[in-house]
Amino acid sequence: MNDEFMQEAIRQARKSLSEGGIPIGSALVKDGKLVASGHNKRVQENNPILHGEMDCLNNAGRVGSFRQTVIYSTLMPCYMCAGTIVQFKIPKVIVGESRTFAGAREFMEQHGVEVIDLDLPECVDMMNQFIAQKPEVWNEDIGEL
Amino acid sequence: MNDEFMQEAIRQARKSLSEGGIPIGSALVKDGKLVASGHNKRVQENNPILHGEMDCLNNAGRVGSFRQTVIYSTLMPCYMCAGTIVQFKIPKVIVGESRTFAGAREFMEQHGVEVIDLDLPECVDMMNQFIAQKPEVWNEDIGEL
Repeated sequence: MNDEFMQEAIRQARKSLSEGGIPIGSALVKDGKLVASGHNKRVQENNPILHGEMDCLNNAGRVGSFRQTVIYSTLMPCYMCAGTIVQFKIPKVIVGESRTFAGAREFMEQHGVEVIDLDLPECVDMMNQFIAQKPEVWNEDIGEL
Repeated sequence: MNDEFMQEAIRQARKSLSEGGIPIGSALVKDGKLVASGHNKRVQENNPILHGEMDCLNNAGRVGSFRQTVIYSTLMPCYMCAGTIVQFKIPKVIVGESRTFAGAREFMEQHGVEVIDLDLPECVDMMNQFIAQKPEVWNEDIGEL
């Protein structure tokens, strides 16, 4: 996988895993440049809203219009993150995979968001291992309690 | 307006206004008891993801299942907050008003969320005044840049 921004998202996911957290990372790019990156912090900060994409936007702060941005995520966004992408009019989402979680692709596409799924084995493997090891944390993260 | 939890949401909105922020507040109730409340912090913390509802969930932390919860907001949730409500399976939303912002009511209802709009003049007035005074901050908050 040669895309430098997806590589940054993957680095963030691995960082989260090394901290005992959920291995999902994200990067925000504006006008072709990295603005911010982040990762899931449910475990690290006891925080249900800091999915990878949300932590990335949290770290980005107030960047003005999102119309020239692309958001990267190692996993297909859930409804929270997809709703955020739709509300802030982020026009393009590039994800690492959607095999371990189908997410809200259709919802984003219905609202005009372009969604590209790179279907990367390294992202699939990372999530499969995590879900097998900590299924209860994963189920909590996606509201399946 | 006698609902104590909506009163808490309105107190939060007024607190935000007194801090120079956007006057939207929220409260989360589980099994009939207040778990947390919060308010929009875009201005106060330079943070685009902390809408009132998101700050409230941020403050609540990991509460386990949301199936016995109700979330209150002084304003109809946007797609970010509505997506969060859908993803975490919060079954009921009680809002102060939707006259100043229509929000994502239909999306929530399509996903089985019960939405009650109290249409409170005090909430409408608070938002109308804010939008008239700081239209650029409001447009930024809802992604209309």
